[in-house]
Amino acid sequence: MTEFFEVQPPDQARQRWFSQITHQVEVEYIPTHETLGRVTADVIHSAEALPAFQRSMVDGYAVQANSTYGASDSLPTYLRVVGEILMGKEAEITVQKGEAALIHTGGMIPRGADAVVMVEHTQPIDEREIEVLKAAAPGENVLQIGEDVTPNSPILPARHRIKAQDIGAMLAVGWNEHVPVVKRPRVCIFSTGDELVHPLAEKLKLGQIRDINSSTIQALCAGAEAEIMGIVPDDAMELFKALEKALPTADMLVVTAGSSVSARDMTAQVINQLGKPGVVVHGVAARPGKPTILAVVDGKPVIGLPGNPVSAFVMFRLFGVPALAHLMGTPMAIQTKVAARVTVNVPSAAGREDYVPVRLIERNGDGEQWAEPIFGKSNLIFTLVGADGLLKIPLNVTGLREGVWGEVIL
Amino acid sequence: MTEFFEVQPPDQARQRWFSQITHQVEVEYIPTHETLGRVTADVIHSAEALPAFQRSMVDGYAVQANSTYGASDSLPTYLRVVGEILMGKEAEITVQKGEAALIHTGGMIPRGADAVVMVEHTQPIDEREIEVLKAAAPGENVLQIGEDVTPNSPILPARHRIKAQDIGAMLAVGWNEHVPVVKRPRVCIFSTGDELVHPLAEKLKLGQIRDINSSTIQALCAGAEAEIMGIVPDDAMELFKALEKALPTADMLVVTAGSSVSARDMTAQVINQLGKPGVVVHGVAARPGKPTILAVVDGKPVIGLPGNPVSAFVMFRLFGVPALAHLMGTPMAIQTKVAARVTVNVPSAAGREDYVPVRLIERNGDGEQWAEPIFGKSNLIFTLVGADGLLKIPLNVTGLREGVWGEVIL
Repeated sequence: MTEFFEVQPPDQARQRWFSQITHQVEVEYIPTHETLGRVTADVIHSAEALPAFQRSMVDGYAVQANSTYGASDSLPTYLRVVGEILMGKEAEITVQKGEAALIHTGGMIPRGADAVVMVEHTQPIDEREIEVLKAAAPGENVLQIGEDVTPNSPILPARHRIKAQDIGAMLAVGWNEHVPVVKRPRVCIFSTGDELVHPLAEKLKLGQIRDINSSTIQALCAGAEAEIMGIVPDDAMELFKALEKALPTADMLVVTAGSSVSARDMTAQVINQLGKPGVVVHGVAARPGKPTILAVVDGKPVIGLPGNPVSAFVMFRLFGVPALAHLMGTPMAIQTKVAARVTVNVPSAAGREDYVPVRLIERNGDGEQWAEPIFGKSNLIFTLVGADGLLKIPLNVTGLREGVWGEVIL
Repeated sequence: MTEFFEVQPPDQARQRWFSQITHQVEVEYIPTHETLGRVTADVIHSAEALPAFQRSMVDGYAVQANSTYGASDSLPTYLRVVGEILMGKEAEITVQKGEAALIHTGGMIPRGADAVVMVEHTQPIDEREIEVLKAAAPGENVLQIGEDVTPNSPILPARHRIKAQDIGAMLAVGWNEHVPVVKRPRVCIFSTGDELVHPLAEKLKLGQIRDINSSTIQALCAGAEAEIMGIVPDDAMELFKALEKALPTADMLVVTAGSSVSARDMTAQVINQLGKPGVVVHGVAARPGKPTILAVVDGKPVIGLPGNPVSAFVMFRLFGVPALAHLMGTPMAIQTKVAARVTVNVPSAAGREDYVPVRLIERNGDGEQWAEPIFGKSNLIFTLVGADGLLKIPLNVTGLREGVWGEVIL
């Protein structure tokens, strides 16, 4: 049993935890139009050349470049117009020396032609003849076969989070199905606490509160398949049975503890019984969320969260969300941190990271971003409503002074 | 017919366009656990008080505060333990003067008690008696009824984009269904261009390319219900019929033009025939994407995009995505812009906004964010793969020098 009962700084805790997670999420193959936000399991290669034919990059006339040599405003060259290249059709015309074919942007370069003169550099004489006012070099305004993409070249890297433009890129080269992506990790969320009732319960009895942590954490699991497994009584055997049953088909287990100290301690004991290495981190030097448990069983991440809704939210954002990205082998989505100036003095204690819910605002019309802390007496979920992010107060700092730049985790 | 053929700066164009959009998206009522990312149509009020009973904020002993007056480390007060408050149950004990009841965090304060002494400030004598080492004031460590939320108080504002914590907040006060939200706007996406074929087409003929813009724009419409309506031939009557049929049930129409100039001009003419005011902006002082059309018909936004994939992407990000937020009456999602330093000189022209695809990186280990431009010859969608955002080069600037801070739109 590998246990570390000392409280650890968040970065070190995360690193130690991740280093023991060996489980990998499976791969599945899905149609391209369903891949938004998913993570590629492999490099995506192009099967085709793009473009697949020589295309005009402008509106103008397809010509043999040497027909235009010496042309200028003062001494134009005259070319015979032998037809128009229709969009979407194979060019049937052959362009000879001294000839030109009307072509549109994206049109297929006809046989014989090796350049396109922009329409702006021509002057029509009549329907059959144009003046060319500027010489074109061979290849000018022509996109060559495979110039964008050669066959077998990589389009998307492996472990890449697929964005809107990536879908376009795959479709452009004919990838429209069977895209290898990492399955959405399956997260099983449990709550313990005899005071909890299901949030859909019509009527609360005195002493009861609704289980909101499960739903909040489920909503934080965007990109994963998070299932609320329900409320388990404050009983070690019951919790053990519930976790043991879920573990084989889950990629990650989350347990939010009851509010009482005894309920929290029970979680750690049960996780250690579940398998090796068990609890890796027991306690994080952070506020809120100190009594967080980070564990690994069968190579899979298991996380025990404090019952307080703000603590559970902050700790899952700090550890659970990165663990989901880690399981999929991809970095966190870009730009989850921004800089902002603090609107008031925010005290803290050295040796502990504080995470303060803040609203991002502009003030003074100075164009700079300010972080305005949202304080609430009892640390309930309502302090997070309206919060745009969490202001981080670093480990060895005793607070941030008004006007100082801080880091905000979105 | 209100037409403005002069090219307009993007901000001014957007403002002029929005000022004529009068259409409002309808309201629907959905269960709370389905509201993530949706926009509230109305203020959400609490029907209940929270907490609904007096709760202990700590682990300790519920007492009458006046039983503890004068207690200190050197002169403790002795109290008789009369029982334990079970979690989730109505407290059945009544605490008299000189008595204490064991209570856990979140437990219900028993009758008679008005304060909780933290367990750290007590010392057990035996099972029936404790020493209290510190006096408690009335109300100490007790969360009063309604202290977090009073009945009828607002939980979420109207036109608020619902986040994970907001779901928890609604559930906490018993809102678990019938949440009034703005419907997902219905966006109908059309492509024109005789050279286009459906992206699922197995085999391309020479001269043909796949329609990737429809899919890219659909993917950019996260939060909306975007439907790909298909490819319309380069024919004004066909396009008119297609748009006219879609308009009554759509909240927004998007047309990506064929690559040729004639195809683009056709779009504007057809939109003007569709209804008043028709085209509001024809041409935006931006690169890429100058020939963009912003129109309004029946109070609904209609947008005509250039056929080039990068232009279509950038312009839809700049106009289409904000228009979706505008239709729902909500500000854009927070933090869609970040500051970053440019890794190389990026030239531009005054009087035009440039949008350059960039990768956000760290370099020199200086902890600062740098924007590295991704250049591609033919401006195809592949330049956007791997891009984290678009670096904006402002209207009246002739470029950004290496090391200068710029604005990146994610």
